[in-house]
Amino acid sequence: MIEFSTHPDHYKHWQLSIDDRVATLALDVREDGGIEPGYDLKLNSYDLGVDIELYDAVQRLRFEHPDVGAVIITSAKDRVFCAGANISMLAQSAHGAKVNFCKFTNETRNGIEDASAHSGQRYLCVINGTAAGGGYELALATDHIILVDDGASAVSLPEVPLLAVLPGTGGLTRVVDKRHVRRDRADFFCTTGEGMRGKRALEWDLVDELAPRSRLTEAAGTRAAALAAQTDRPTGAQGISLTPLQRDIGDGEIAYRHVTVTFDRAGRTATFRLRGPDGPPPQDAAAIHAEGDRFWPLAFARELDDAILHLRFNEPELGTWILTTSGDGDHVAAADSALLANGSDWLAREITLYFKRTLKRLDVSSRSLIALIEPGSCFTGSLLELALAADRSYMLDGAFEGSNVAPATVRPTAMNFGPLPMCNGLTRLESRFLNDSSKVAEIEAETGNDLDAKAAEELGLVTFIPDDIDWEDEVRIAIEARASFSPDALTAMEANLRFAGPETIESKIFARLTAWQNWVFQRPNAVGEGGALKLYGTGKQPDFDRKRV
Amino acid sequence: MIEFSTHPDHYKHWQLSIDDRVATLALDVREDGGIEPGYDLKLNSYDLGVDIELYDAVQRLRFEHPDVGAVIITSAKDRVFCAGANISMLAQSAHGAKVNFCKFTNETRNGIEDASAHSGQRYLCVINGTAAGGGYELALATDHIILVDDGASAVSLPEVPLLAVLPGTGGLTRVVDKRHVRRDRADFFCTTGEGMRGKRALEWDLVDELAPRSRLTEAAGTRAAALAAQTDRPTGAQGISLTPLQRDIGDGEIAYRHVTVTFDRAGRTATFRLRGPDGPPPQDAAAIHAEGDRFWPLAFARELDDAILHLRFNEPELGTWILTTSGDGDHVAAADSALLANGSDWLAREITLYFKRTLKRLDVSSRSLIALIEPGSCFTGSLLELALAADRSYMLDGAFEGSNVAPATVRPTAMNFGPLPMCNGLTRLESRFLNDSSKVAEIEAETGNDLDAKAAEELGLVTFIPDDIDWEDEVRIAIEARASFSPDALTAMEANLRFAGPETIESKIFARLTAWQNWVFQRPNAVGEGGALKLYGTGKQPDFDRKRV
Repeated sequence: MIEFSTHPDHYKHWQLSIDDRVATLALDVREDGGIEPGYDLKLNSYDLGVDIELYDAVQRLRFEHPDVGAVIITSAKDRVFCAGANISMLAQSAHGAKVNFCKFTNETRNGIEDASAHSGQRYLCVINGTAAGGGYELALATDHIILVDDGASAVSLPEVPLLAVLPGTGGLTRVVDKRHVRRDRADFFCTTGEGMRGKRALEWDLVDELAPRSRLTEAAGTRAAALAAQTDRPTGAQGISLTPLQRDIGDGEIAYRHVTVTFDRAGRTATFRLRGPDGPPPQDAAAIHAEGDRFWPLAFARELDDAILHLRFNEPELGTWILTTSGDGDHVAAADSALLANGSDWLAREITLYFKRTLKRLDVSSRSLIALIEPGSCFTGSLLELALAADRSYMLDGAFEGSNVAPATVRPTAMNFGPLPMCNGLTRLESRFLNDSSKVAEIEAETGNDLDAKAAEELGLVTFIPDDIDWEDEVRIAIEARASFSPDALTAMEANLRFAGPETIESKIFARLTAWQNWVFQRPNAVGEGGALKLYGTGKQPDFDRKRV
Repeated sequence: MIEFSTHPDHYKHWQLSIDDRVATLALDVREDGGIEPGYDLKLNSYDLGVDIELYDAVQRLRFEHPDVGAVIITSAKDRVFCAGANISMLAQSAHGAKVNFCKFTNETRNGIEDASAHSGQRYLCVINGTAAGGGYELALATDHIILVDDGASAVSLPEVPLLAVLPGTGGLTRVVDKRHVRRDRADFFCTTGEGMRGKRALEWDLVDELAPRSRLTEAAGTRAAALAAQTDRPTGAQGISLTPLQRDIGDGEIAYRHVTVTFDRAGRTATFRLRGPDGPPPQDAAAIHAEGDRFWPLAFARELDDAILHLRFNEPELGTWILTTSGDGDHVAAADSALLANGSDWLAREITLYFKRTLKRLDVSSRSLIALIEPGSCFTGSLLELALAADRSYMLDGAFEGSNVAPATVRPTAMNFGPLPMCNGLTRLESRFLNDSSKVAEIEAETGNDLDAKAAEELGLVTFIPDDIDWEDEVRIAIEARASFSPDALTAMEANLRFAGPETIESKIFARLTAWQNWVFQRPNAVGEGGALKLYGTGKQPDFDRKRV
């Protein structure tokens, strides 16, 4: 079972140090510390385990270190920055494991950019040796890349010439769409195994700054201080601790405080039972800080985040995720307004940003998402986003016969109209009504109102509103049908239907780049017995099928 | 060998008729008329042969029928519109054939939208029976969809539930991004094999209009007349004939009047020798009309178009296309200005639009493109676009030793700054300098000037400018290296690097949708021995690998 919780005290591969406003994350991969047996993590190459620690570090810097305004990513090894994703690991991984690994690493790199853009923690990368493949892709996720100018150290994306796969962790996209490297130069760069050094790397915009080895630390410090000086983060503030998540995992269920997921292995579904706050949430910043990681939106996001990752990696056959909620809508609305009213507080901002990223993780999960909105449910504000993230939603019109639980309602809050955009840059409501912003305005006019099934349907918030007589059959048939389809076709279909509208670097990474990489990961030229990925390091030359497709 | 030239007199599957301002293209597929043996084209299902005729018809309507302002696409069969791409054909096709087929059908549908948007020929679709899969996708490419409201005829995208593949000819993209069908409704629609009929199809924006069978012809005529009335095309104008292309095909070469392509099978390259006009092109509209399909830009575009398709389908192992030109830059510049000066003339406009589409076809060809700019070459204006479409360009700095041919130059014309956009909506120069429109302005300031290698490099127009001493080695090594890489990795890399910047429906179809479809086309759940595509029609149920990837 793959486990995502860790702590700096237990890191095998990263050294986290903090000096006033500047943090340093130094990569020092333990060769024998792979998350799976079968390969050595040479030359600071990484596997999922290395990246789980990086994800943890990025998260903790945001929450536990409010004073940090800049983060240096570098290597603790002499003259080696990072050789990228470990090739033996990739070669021995099943297709699904490769895809899952790349998606998670992409999400972490997008999270780094999110911190730079929104969180007042600017990332820079200090490349003190060669940065190859995923090593350079990690650098590309930062705001500023300093390369040691020693006549030897290069940045490179050697995947195409050496491995017959893509630089699939954002590399191709960020080279042309973020750094705006001219496409013909990008073509040359991405087909040149040895990469580029020094002055040419700078001239071609592959890096931002050069420094001789003797001045590298100084250059990094100067630049980090300059970036840190731009932060709007407070000085002298107290961070909050991200304490270990309490969870119980059984064969049929994973249970946290606010999130329980039950598994129906025969039906191939996982049912998320998502709970709102137990009581009225605190409203002022001091009280939010005092609650720390027990504050509902943060606690909830951490649990949901962990549950999504657990299911993605450990439960691949549970192809449909059914999203249900319970709780008091007033408490959720109060939590939403507490976050937004304290938007200038660093912690409240971080929590909203984390909620956003967790919903984005749901959006790009390759599982069918069906929301069930029943009496007793609590699809209010931030929790309403779950129904909007779903591929489809069913809302019971009225009450269940013989039940005294009141009919379900949904309630928009300000959280539905901006703070939680999808990776395409639009809110889920804007993505839902691409052709007609007046529909979003109609829903916004209902902010704070509990909308019954007919009103929700009228406003376009839900897909279907069966009544008590039809509910069970209609929902059962939908779920059973979903389970009967090809998982691959569903994944591909959902990846197309979920992200209409504009594209961003992030959405392009999950669409264009990832889809092509997944294709390549299926091709015999890469992964066949004679494919480049399989033969790498054996000294044998791959024997390619020369037909262009 | 697959052959793309045809003529309405030889159509097997379409009936083209014209009544004043309205043309009708009626699909009447001959069951035993498949382009390959092994399947029957039942229920107006189509294969590449059917689509080659459609492409021909759309082209001829633009050039041969200036008076046509609206085109009705419908079926000549009673109560059957089109069952989509033939499933047995897909099931028996190799991976590359599937991908090539889908790309070509996508290009034809994009061409229909181009005619509607830019050419004054508005397309509408009259669905007189069930339109399934590719049948509905063809309808989606038109401006207006009328569905017969007979209680039986439906529109549907049954690929996911029935075949474990995608509606990959634009369907998923157009449903959410063109028609703005709400994503949850799109999800339901695309997982419902039987599709949707009548009122619900209209309410969900899947069609634009309903008509009872008794009034279908009348409704179509009314709508077509209204669309035709909006055209800016002339009345009473004379079309030009698209006469059969003259070409010679040998084992090592394909030769047209202005285009010759020579094959190096050992080196896996095809060298395009592209020639400018033989003499000064006509400048006024009447003279252009008099030249008809001999007018250089049109003749050239037709030949290049045919050559691209020939190589794509018939020469898959020639993985690198080397683009060279020759001719008199003044003549090309004169042809460019003739087209632009006569932009209000329907024919000049059509020729420019066709040149644009041909270059787009080059952009999305899965071949590495290397432009060689040597003494005697003619990379002026519209031909300069070929160098800008290339993944990389080499321009000789100076003359070859012992040669009296003057050093090469490149020359921008107005054609490089707007009329020939890529599928992302930007010109190739805008895509090249995404970060810096001032660089495009610098080049625009050189309009009409012959730029030598150093100037071209300085302006960012070319990748490398080796001199006579380095030229041969540098070019040879680049081409040999390209030929040594995995064809798949190159295809995927190029698809990412070529299309930086904004996305459009068209670019999303070739990126997100196509890449995912290609992935699905590799997955055992679709194409394995027990996959849905293989088992369709056998009565056996596919046995899916249930793991989500």
